[in-house]
Order: sequence, then structure tokens, then C-alpha cells
Amino acid sequence: MPVDVPVVPVILAAGRGTRMHSARPKVLQALAEKTLLAHVLDTVCGLELAPPVVVLGHAADQVEAALGGNYVTATQSPQLGTGHALQCALAAIDAAAVVLVLYGDVPLIRPQTLKALLASRPSDGLALLTVTLPDPSGYGRIVRDDSGAVVGIVEERDADESQKALREVNTGIMAAPCARWADWLSRVGCDNAQGEYYLTDCIALAKADGVPIATHRCHDIDETQGVNDRSQLAQAERVLRARRASALMRAGALLRNPDTIEIRGHVHVGSDVEIDNGAVFEGDVTLADGVRIGAHCVLRNCRLERGAEVLAQSVIDGAEVGAGCRIGPFARLRPGTRLAAGAHVGNFVEIKNAEIDSGSKINHLSYIGDASIGAGVNVGAGTITCNYDGVNKHRTRIGAHAFIGSNTALVAPVSVGPGATIGAGSVITRDAPDDKLTLARARQSTIEGWRRPAKHKE
Amino acid sequence: MPVDVPVVPVILAAGRGTRMHSARPKVLQALAEKTLLAHVLDTVCGLELAPPVVVLGHAADQVEAALGGNYVTATQSPQLGTGHALQCALAAIDAAAVVLVLYGDVPLIRPQTLKALLASRPSDGLALLTVTLPDPSGYGRIVRDDSGAVVGIVEERDADESQKALREVNTGIMAAPCARWADWLSRVGCDNAQGEYYLTDCIALAKADGVPIATHRCHDIDETQGVNDRSQLAQAERVLRARRASALMRAGALLRNPDTIEIRGHVHVGSDVEIDNGAVFEGDVTLADGVRIGAHCVLRNCRLERGAEVLAQSVIDGAEVGAGCRIGPFARLRPGTRLAAGAHVGNFVEIKNAEIDSGSKINHLSYIGDASIGAGVNVGAGTITCNYDGVNKHRTRIGAHAFIGSNTALVAPVSVGPGATIGAGSVITRDAPDDKLTLARARQSTIEGWRRPAKHKE
Amino acid sequence: MPVDVPVVPVILAAGRGTRMHSARPKVLQALAEKTLLAHVLDTVCGLELAPPVVVLGHAADQVEAALGGNYVTATQSPQLGTGHALQCALAAIDAAAVVLVLYGDVPLIRPQTLKALLASRPSDGLALLTVTLPDPSGYGRIVRDDSGAVVGIVEERDADESQKALREVNTGIMAAPCARWADWLSRVGCDNAQGEYYLTDCIALAKADGVPIATHRCHDIDETQGVNDRSQLAQAERVLRARRASALMRAGALLRNPDTIEIRGHVHVGSDVEIDNGAVFEGDVTLADGVRIGAHCVLRNCRLERGAEVLAQSVIDGAEVGAGCRIGPFARLRPGTRLAAGAHVGNFVEIKNAEIDSGSKINHLSYIGDASIGAGVNVGAGTITCNYDGVNKHRTRIGAHAFIGSNTALVAPVSVGPGATIGAGSVITRDAPDDKLTLARARQSTIEGWRRPAKHKE
Repeated sequence: MPVDVPVVPVILAAGRGTRMHSARPKVLQALAEKTLLAHVLDTVCGLELAPPVVVLGHAADQVEAALGGNYVTATQSPQLGTGHALQCALAAIDAAAVVLVLYGDVPLIRPQTLKALLASRPSDGLALLTVTLPDPSGYGRIVRDDSGAVVGIVEERDADESQKALREVNTGIMAAPCARWADWLSRVGCDNAQGEYYLTDCIALAKADGVPIATHRCHDIDETQGVNDRSQLAQAERVLRARRASALMRAGALLRNPDTIEIRGHVHVGSDVEIDNGAVFEGDVTLADGVRIGAHCVLRNCRLERGAEVLAQSVIDGAEVGAGCRIGPFARLRPGTRLAAGAHVGNFVEIKNAEIDSGSKINHLSYIGDASIGAGVNVGAGTITCNYDGVNKHRTRIGAHAFIGSNTALVAPVSVGPGATIGAGSVITRDAPDDKLTLARARQSTIEGWRRPAKHKE
Repeated sequence: MPVDVPVVPVILAAGRGTRMHSARPKVLQALAEKTLLAHVLDTVCGLELAPPVVVLGHAADQVEAALGGNYVTATQSPQLGTGHALQCALAAIDAAAVVLVLYGDVPLIRPQTLKALLASRPSDGLALLTVTLPDPSGYGRIVRDDSGAVVGIVEERDADESQKALREVNTGIMAAPCARWADWLSRVGCDNAQGEYYLTDCIALAKADGVPIATHRCHDIDETQGVNDRSQLAQAERVLRARRASALMRAGALLRNPDTIEIRGHVHVGSDVEIDNGAVFEGDVTLADGVRIGAHCVLRNCRLERGAEVLAQSVIDGAEVGAGCRIGPFARLRPGTRLAAGAHVGNFVEIKNAEIDSGSKINHLSYIGDASIGAGVNVGAGTITCNYDGVNKHRTRIGAHAFIGSNTALVAPVSVGPGATIGAGSVITRDAPDDKLTLARARQSTIEGWRRPAKHKE
Repeated sequence: MPVDVPVVPVILAAGRGTRMHSARPKVLQALAEKTLLAHVLDTVCGLELAPPVVVLGHAADQVEAALGGNYVTATQSPQLGTGHALQCALAAIDAAAVVLVLYGDVPLIRPQTLKALLASRPSDGLALLTVTLPDPSGYGRIVRDDSGAVVGIVEERDADESQKALREVNTGIMAAPCARWADWLSRVGCDNAQGEYYLTDCIALAKADGVPIATHRCHDIDETQGVNDRSQLAQAERVLRARRASALMRAGALLRNPDTIEIRGHVHVGSDVEIDNGAVFEGDVTLADGVRIGAHCVLRNCRLERGAEVLAQSVIDGAEVGAGCRIGPFARLRPGTRLAAGAHVGNFVEIKNAEIDSGSKINHLSYIGDASIGAGVNVGAGTITCNYDGVNKHRTRIGAHAFIGSNTALVAPVSVGPGATIGAGSVITRDAPDDKLTLARARQSTIEGWRRPAKHKE
């Protein structure tokens, strides 16, 4: 590949995707956490190419909005086939550039494959990505002469029996000089059943013009698979899941059952991280050395330090978890939770927008919201910070080594001093002083002569 | 198939299924939510045939009870083989009818396959369903002459090497006139190792009699797979899961990991429904457009309106969930729950037999049972409706825009008026008036000179 | 195999396992609940052989510590190849014994395979375990003469094309007399790229010496698969999961989706046990006849009696659950929990170190720790045993047929008498007498003229 010629990726994203049965156009369907189109864009942006051009068509406004003004777009209207789509993009491209044609619904293509394809392109010629399929039905077959040179592409409908037996097919991913495309596309006709201009027809024109054609064979058939319906989308997600699971395992993580673990975002792992069955990861998640994630946990945008352990069925979102913390089972950490080293958060506990200092324990059935809790505090079962008065949120402060008795309501704004003890079942509405016992509790009494309710007549 | 001849399905359901190691007979084993036998019955009842006859044998009482008196049965006692089983049914069938032989342990046969089989039957002849297996060991091979006509079925034990190489086998599913079966079965012998009368032997008699024999080849090998042990049962469930997942995806649902999603009942989806890893569906579930179901949720007999979102780990049974509601994570909605549009039910909240009006929020650690809650109510964390006095259930009523402070117990029967505020930590035993603050709370005090407990000597 | 010759298994466990990216040596990586090495040790200890010798090398201290002094070890330092490793072990072995060579990173070898291998060994000769692989690349091929006798093993690098096409390969698992090994290993050289002494070279020496060589072919390729990285570890876990799921199904359990069920420990099942999607089993778990385990439950070291039902998302550890109990969803039973027949533990309930007698119900949002609860007790929602005073744990006792009102705190040590009723929202600090109503509750009052808080200005 000549070094100084810019390569402009053109991503065809005009299709509707009727088979998705969706209000969203096909290229905006979600695969892992991103749209199909974003996968392709991220792949080309990882290569050092010129800025890509996205060809819009169906639901152009929605796709344009999803792109957020970050990309050059061209609009194809009406949509008259892939050849026409590329033609719509060429106006925006320097005639001296090389155009790499990609598809917004072929999301799993890898950067190294595109690099190899571009490297294979003859000077002033065309490079074509092919793939060998176990069942090539429906795809255009690559026909070669005895020397192995590409003679042309034969579509299924035009193929004879020996051609139908060919299993190397056209992926549609190609690169050629912009000027070549412009010339070929000006000559492509639409005399076919759909009345469309097919990009593939350029290859015959290239051959006829004596333009050199190289092919690069992609060895991973998943990379070139288009996504046209929800089953293919599920299959793409399966492929991505396996790729990401492999990457985590290569990095040193133990995945108990990779087939059940969802990795939708970016997960960074240290060594000896263990992840159990059914875990789901979203956003940016960092798991330091020795972190253990129990079965069926959901983690999103969080960071867990060395040796932290999350027991089964916990949900963590937007939290920082210190070294050696123990979370769960059935714990929920919401955004703004910061746990210092060695803190424990147990079952049926929700924490939101709160800092919990080192070694503190909130082990059972509690809601801690908008709070600052010092080190070494014991928060009893059933403790609730009443942080909301119906219109405002208020903060609860608990000093180090305080002991909060069970079933306590702390009506914020309120402070509990360091070393304070709060009696079980109290409603604390005023600040509780350091080191003393504070409580709010009715006297216990036994009622004589009381009788249990009788069963009502139905 | 002659139009006016009634077709009577006979379902052989007399086997024991020793390899199941179960107290239930084989045909009553559960596949998804139904028994194996019910799958076959539902399939034939979907066709427009005459009422089926079920042949009972082992545990006939249990099977009869499971049928609930809705089907004609015949009893085979003792059980002397498949031929004998069919013979037991013939007495109940009009001699002019066509008998379609099916099996209570072959649950995945599709209606269209049976239709095609029946359509293939020559007038006054026999139609036989065949299937081509990758490994036909153990099955009776279909032997054909050069013209492709069936010559006979050769059992494994009698097959020569070239016959053993045949991969098209007999499924046992057949149709022929009742009178033919009666004739053939009167001539079938039991001179074999088991001393049983084999239905398969009828084919040789048909051939010998010059009765025309047609075959219909079933292209989906799962349809004709018998279920004889728990591994085959798990495999049948796998097939059914994949079929149902495909149907949901064709209808427009996004299934993140279809291999982990259990669809045991009937799920109806709108467009752009999203279902995450590990979801389980039972009974009748309707998910309107844009509904999202988080990871590891269990839903049974419920209806979720447009845009409702269920976060991870929630359990919903017998509930109606309005448009735009947000449920979970860790929420449990029990039967009789009705949430109006935009209601929120958060973590560690259980709701039972209660109506929650639009926009109300019950976000944390609460139990709401036998209650009516108006619109725009905020129910604080740790709120409990004390609906049970040990013998009777009572109702709690909360008016619109009331604010229930955290850790409140509402001792039913009790009403909280519209716009009322209940102070945190209260036990409300009498009706609380509209628009005012009601509370039941002890005075907070601090004890001087109190000392923390000392560690006991062990 | 001569009957009276002792067989000493030697397990090579000196490797580092760089590709694991772990602080633990390879043989200490966990597969299900045990280390790779422990799998091999348990397999050989199930055979009636002489005590095994484990060859340590990399991280010998860690491996020695993991062995807990229960096994004879030999240390290989420095590590100069597999031949050298075995040589290090020979000193510890009687020269008259037969040495069976195994590998600490080949964990799935089955006892019956080893028995068959040993049985195949010619007197005074060598027996070699082989396996036929779909893709033998990288393995030493078994070369045989026309009579089928082993001629030798050809390593990949030395193989010609016809040898490369051979798919039967050397597993490295072998048995020969100790004296033979000593002789061969004294003659093996290290003139190769790694400069190591290869155990495999012994086979050529055996051949040259005219020692009879027998092979036994292992038909399950999973048995001989080495575990060198985390993907292979996940694959081994997949194999083990399938083996164990099959065993449970053969024993009569219904596994809804075996691919999602984790069986890491030992699970004993009665008949008609049902296990739903995503269940995880660890340690020793016994499920009696008719037990049902809901979706996404985690069970460890527990025993569930006949007909007990665990609803979705429950976590049970160290508990005994009586017949007909109903647990969950979202229940957590911790060690020391003993539920008598027919007890109910519902959602968001944690129980620890407590006996609950028959028919008692704790259905919602409660923490019961260090308690004894009699029969027929109803524990209301939000009940908390305050068992911890900051330094000591205390016990709560509740007599039969007591009724504990909702949102009650029981401050231990405390007793509630049989038949007692505790009013909702009470903090019980002193013993409550039998059959009477005891409560601790503030008077309810309504504040006139109170106004709701106004929204703060931001």
C-alpha cells in the first residue's frame, strides 16, 4: 500500500433492517453496549486512517443524532442500492484517496483484518476481502483462473453447479482509489430485479479494465457476518462474548462458565481474579488482583481493589470498593458509594452516595443514602437513613467507632458522634453526642386480659 | 388425503420410563411447563382432527387423572408391546377412520409435519414418517428398492452391513385406515426376545398385502426424538428453548444470551423488548413495546405495559405493571399487585395484593400487602403494612400524595389521608388525617454515665 | 498385570504455568472446588495402589503446603524436564514397584482408564496411554508397524507428512517397572533446543532394548487434556460440569438447563428433584426426594429434606432444611440454621445460627440470628433479633405459637413466652410473658399546623 495516500473508510449505514421489527434502524441496534455502527466506527478509528464517511439513508435523522456530529455523513435518498450508496459518499472524498468500503451492519470486523486487506491492495488496484464458508448459499462466489487470479464474482442466481460448489465468497468489504470507484459507479447499471445499483458490479468492470485485483482471505467467518435479524444479532453477541471472555482469561482471570458471563463494557482485571456463573459487566469495570465476583452479580462502572469479594446476587453501579471489602450476597451499591478498605456490606443492604470508612460494617437490611460513616462503625440490622423529606435530600454523619443499634431511623440532617451508641429501635432526629448512649424508645409494657383476635367470619 | 375420512390420533402413553428414576410415569414428566403427553395432545388438538385416543398402561390412574377427563382413553393391561397398545385403542375408533399413531414420549413433533404426513398417505394406504440420522444405530432402517419405494424396515439386529449404513430410519409415527390396522395387528406375532407385539411389523404385512406405502421425511431430527431419560429430557428442553427464543427474536425481541433464557410458558412481546441473561418466563407473560427485563429476573403470569423496566434479580408473579414503571433490582411483586403508570418499586420491596397508583414510589426495604395506595405517594424505606393479626388479613389505605416516613409500621385496618405525612419510625394504629403530620415516636434522650458492654469471657 | 507388584503413581507437579498469569502455580489452580493436583490425587487414591509420590518444583513450598503433609513428595530443583522430574521421584520408590506416571495438570483422567492401562501392561514391559485427536498438531504421534506394534513416538518437529497425518498421539501417561525407568532415564540425553531430559525418550530406549510396549487407547479425549491456560481450565470445568450434570440426571434429577448449572461440590439427589437455571452447588449438598431448587440459587453444605422447596435467588450455606419447608425467593440461610418440617422463610430474610421449629413462618424482611424459635410461631415483617451488643453475641428465645408483630426489635438476651403476642413496632428488651400482649410503643399524635418542608434553593 503506497504510504502517503490517505485511506477514507466509507461505512454504508442506510439500510432499514425490516427483519429486526424495531423502531430503530438496523445500524442503531445494540450489540453489547454499543450500536452496530459504533462497533465499525470504533474499529476504523483504531486504525490510523482518514476520518470515515457514514452514508445515511433510512431514518437518517436518528442515525445522524446517534453520531452526535462527530462524523462526516452523506445522505442516500432514495436508496438505490449499495453502488448508489457509495456514489453518494464520493463527493465528500478527495479523488486521490483510497476508499475502504465497510458496512454498518457488519460489526465484528477486526482492525488487523482491515490492515491486511489494505496492505494487499495493488498500487492503483482493488483489494477484496473474501471468506470461505461451510455453506456459501446465497453469497457471491469468488471465481479464479488456474493461476489463482480473480476472474470475477458470480452471484448465486447466475452460478452453474461447479461455481455453486465454490465456498470462497465476497464479503463486500473492498478498497480501491476514489477515482476508480467514481468511474466504475458511473458505468454500473440497474437492470436487475430490484432495479438497484450493485457495488459488486464494480469488480467485473475492474476486471474488464485490467485493473489489478487482489484478495485477502479472512480466516474468522464471524468477522464478516452481517446482522440482519435478531438471531444474527444474538449470534454476534455470542461471538463478542467469547472474544472478551478469552481476553479476560488470557489476562489471568478465572471464568467459571464463560458461556454465561456477559461482558458488555470494558473489564480490566488483575491476576487471580475469579468470576462466577452469570455475572454481567457493563461500562468500565476494574477488578484488581484477587478480586472475586460471585454468581449472578451485575457490575457497572465500578472499581474493586485488591482482594475485594462480592458474594452472589449483588448489584454494583458507580461505586468504589476498597481492598479486602466484602459485599453481599444481595447487596446493592449505587452511584457515589465509596467503601474504604475492609468495609463489609451484607445482605439486603442498599448504599447510595455515601462514604464508608475502613472496617465499618453494614451487614443486614439497611438503607444508607447520602451519608458519611467513619471507620470501625457497626451499623445494626434494619438501619435506615431518612435522607429525603419529600422535597430535599439531607446528609447523615456517623463518627468513627459509633454503634448504631438495630432498627434505627436516622432522620437527616443528623450527626452521630464518634464512639456514640444508639439504642435499638430509636428514631434519631437530633445529633447524638460522642461516646454516649442515645436512644428514643417507648417503655415496654404487658397488657393484662388481652385476647388474640378471633377469625372473622368469611 | 381423502377429505371426508376422519383422522383419529392414537397416542401411546403406556410406558413406564424406568430410566427417569421417578415416581411419575414417563409421559407425565415435565417439559417446559407441560407434561410430555400434553405437548403431543396440544399438537394434535391444534390440527383439525377427530378427538384423540390415549392408550394408558403403566400408572394408568395417574395419567388418567392428569388428563382430567378431557380425552378418550383406552387401557392396555398387561403391556404387550406397541402393536398390542394400538390394538387396545382400536375398539374405541370408527372402522372407517384413519388412525394416526403418535407417542406420548415424542413431544416435539410439529403440526405441519403431521399435516404433511397425512397429506402424503395414499388412498387406503399407509404413510410412514421417516428421519435421516447422523448416527442411526439402534433404529429400524428404511429399505427402499431402486425406484425409491419402501421395501420394508430392517431392525438393527437383522441388518446386514449395507443396511446398517442406511441412515433413514423409522420414527414409528404412521397413519393408516383403522380397518387395516385391525387386520394387520390380528396377524402380528410375538415370537421375539421380549415376547411383544411390535407395531413395526405391520409394515411388512402392508407390503406383503400390496398396500401402498408412502413416506414423508421429517427434516428436523429433534421432532422425532423420544424422551427416555433425563438427559434426553434436558435435550428436548434445549430444543424447545431454542425454538421459543427464535420465535421471540422473530417477533422483535432482543435476547442478550438466548442460551440462558428460559421460556417455559407463553411470552408475548411487542417491538424493541430487551431481555437480559438468565431471565425465566413461566405462565402467560406479556411484554409491551420497549419493555426491558434485567438479568436473572423471574416472571410469571404478568403483563408489563409499554416502556416498563425491570432491573436485575426481580421476581414478578401475577402482577400488572403499568407503562414506564421501574421495578427492582431485587423487587418482588406477588399476585394481585397492580402498578399504575410510572410507579417505582425498588430494592428489597415485596408487594402483594395491592394497587399502587401512578407515580407512587416504594423504593426500599418495604412490605406492602393488602393495600391501596393513591397517586404520587412516597413510601419511605422500611415501611411495613401490618396486614395480618394472626388470623385475619386487613387492608391499608393511603391517599394520594401522602408521605410515609421511613421505618413506619401501618397496623391495618388503617387509613392515611390524602396529603398526610407520617413521621419516620411511627407505628400507626389509627387513621391519620389528610394533609397533617401524624407520628408515634418516643422522645430522644441521652444516657449519661452509660458504658459499652465488656467482652464476655469465653 | 502381575498381582503382587505394587504400583506407585508419580505425579509430576513441578511446572509453573506462566500462561495462567497467576500467583499460584499451575497445579494449584482451582477446578470446581479442588486444585488440579487434588483431582489427580483423588483419582489415584480411589484406585488401590501404593501411596503416590508428588514431584514438586516451581513454588514447591506452596504446593507442599497445599498437600498438607499427606503425601510423599520429591523435589526437582532445578527443573530439567519431565525425564528429570521422574528421576527425582525414583529414589523414594522401591525398585521392584511399577511406576505409573501422571501429571498434576491433567486433572480429568478417570480411574477406569488407569486401571485399563495398568491391566494392559506386559510383564516387565511398558504401557502407554494414547488418544486419537481430531487435530493432533503439536503432539507426539504413535508410529506403528504393520502388525500394529508401537515402533516409536515421533514428535511434530521430526515427523514427515505421512507421520503428521497420524492422529493417535502420546498422552505421556505411562507405566513401567521402577528399575526400567531408572535405567532408561540414566541414558536419556538433553541434546535438544530446551536442554531438557524428556520422559518420552524412554520409549525409544524401551523399543531399542526390546522391552514389550503395550498401548491402551483412551476414548474420551477430555481425560487426557492438559490444562495450561485459563481457557483450557474453563474447558475442563465445562467437561466436569457436564459429567456431574449427567450423573445427577442418571440419578433421577430434572435439570432444566444443565449448561447453566454449576456443580462444584458433591450433590446427592433423591428422585424427582428439580433444579432450575443457574443454580450453583458447592461443598456437600443433599437434596431428598421431590426437592425443588429455583432459578439462580446458590447452595453450599446443606441438607434439604423431602419436598422442601427453594424459590428463586436464594442462598443457603451450612443449613438443615426440614421436609416441606418453603424458602425464598431472596432468602439467605447461613451456617447453623436448622429449620424443622414445614417452616417458611420468605423474601429478604436472613437466618443465622438459629433453630426454627415446625410450621413457623418468617416471611418478610427479617434478620434472625442466634435464636431458638418454637413451633407455629409467626414472625412479622421487619423483625430483627439484636443479637450483638458490639462485643458479645446473645440469644433470643421465642416460645411456640408466639406472634411477633412487624417491625419489632428483640434485644437479646431476651425471651418471648409461648403464646405471647408482641405488638408491632416494639423494642423488646425484657422477657415477654406467655400468652399476653407485650408492646413498647409511643402514643400516636397528629400535629396541627405543621407544614411540609419547602424545596431548598439549589
